[in-house]
Amino acid sequence: MKVINYLLGYKDLKIIQDSEMFNFSLDSVLLPNFVTINKKVKKILDIGCGNAPIPLILSTKTNAKIIGVEIQKGVALLAEESIKINNKEDQITIINEDINEFYKKCETDTFDVITCNPPFFKYKKSSNINKNDYKTIARHEIKLNLDQIFIIARKLLKNNGIIAIVNRPERFVEIIECMKKNNIEPKKVQFIYPKNNMEANIMLIEGSKNGNPGLKVVPPLYTHLDNGKYTSEIKKYFE
Amino acid sequence: MKVINYLLGYKDLKIIQDSEMFNFSLDSVLLPNFVTINKKVKKILDIGCGNAPIPLILSTKTNAKIIGVEIQKGVALLAEESIKINNKEDQITIINEDINEFYKKCETDTFDVITCNPPFFKYKKSSNINKNDYKTIARHEIKLNLDQIFIIARKLLKNNGIIAIVNRPERFVEIIECMKKNNIEPKKVQFIYPKNNMEANIMLIEGSKNGNPGLKVVPPLYTHLDNGKYTSEIKKYFE
Repeated sequence: MKVINYLLGYKDLKIIQDSEMFNFSLDSVLLPNFVTINKKVKKILDIGCGNAPIPLILSTKTNAKIIGVEIQKGVALLAEESIKINNKEDQITIINEDINEFYKKCETDTFDVITCNPPFFKYKKSSNINKNDYKTIARHEIKLNLDQIFIIARKLLKNNGIIAIVNRPERFVEIIECMKKNNIEPKKVQFIYPKNNMEANIMLIEGSKNGNPGLKVVPPLYTHLDNGKYTSEIKKYFE
Repeated sequence: MKVINYLLGYKDLKIIQDSEMFNFSLDSVLLPNFVTINKKVKKILDIGCGNAPIPLILSTKTNAKIIGVEIQKGVALLAEESIKINNKEDQITIINEDINEFYKKCETDTFDVITCNPPFFKYKKSSNINKNDYKTIARHEIKLNLDQIFIIARKLLKNNGIIAIVNRPERFVEIIECMKKNNIEPKKVQFIYPKNNMEANIMLIEGSKNGNPGLKVVPPLYTHLDNGKYTSEIKKYFE
């Protein structure tokens, strides 16, 4: 069912969701609030933009041009509708294409910032999953894996340009290795914990192309109080 | 001046300090409380043991034999005195030798656990520091660097044996790389924040020799309250 929701915490933003496909997640709200965007940023790429929550939130923080690339046609159409109802067509462009094809046509060293909320799960051929399912493609590394993301970033980012992604903490080591292999230096990381005294379950990480070594571990976030309710830091995205 | 102190939070433990050399730090209390010690652990090595805070605290948690290696003679003598006044001579042995020489004489695959609170700062030849100073050797990578630590761990740890070290978060990426290069898989990490809303300033990390990938980010610790006093988690080590 297709519905128009207000985008969490952003009173003026609406987003079109379709529960048959997928709804955007907290991850997609955390990432655009984590990534470092300064005034010099002119061009941003969001890889696998889904129904465009990240481009929409970024558009409230910068005047940079934002390109969202989404491989799934139905999802890209939702994204375009959302851009239209928010009158953001001048700032945000949705491209319905496989990023692995799209990036080959782009000039090198042209983006200031890349964001990506990628599929979190490794794809095993033995996995009994429907490879064409909307949700499967968004969640499993069928069309896009970590290595590809950083190969793309290496080509498309300007020198000292930034890539920020969200993932599960258990893949931290692999992400660091993929970044380093592609001359992306990890610069900032934030861990999100579901509650006090629980292990982190979300990780936000930012790297800089050809950046100097030195990682900052910024203050953590907690999503829930001990009583199960959202913390004030998270509730502000829902108000 | 040489004084006998009670070891923070461990009522029965005393430690001999000499302010001319150095006092043990919070890092050395956090590390033995972080490292995973199960009942099967029979043999532990503490690299650069200083005046032996880590072996002493570990001795309250396990019956394993503990070897502390300390390059500086005066410091190793302090460590030995501390072991004696605690009647721990049967469990803890202090070796006054350069670990880089000591490890060559050890059999491979013999330790279950290695701990290390290493020098945090890179040594630059241009640094205007006294290379023979007690504190300098403990703080700067003159006699021991990260790479050497993990080369030693690779040789001395049993298969799936554990190494746990403490360091500054800005060296996290470098540590991951050193670990991976030496077949040590990062398995558990904890970040210590000085206060709410400040970046982490201490990192505890544990890896397993030939372990399977998958990093756990355990709940963080805060050392100080907003009013500057120690948090209850830290205060328990001082009571």
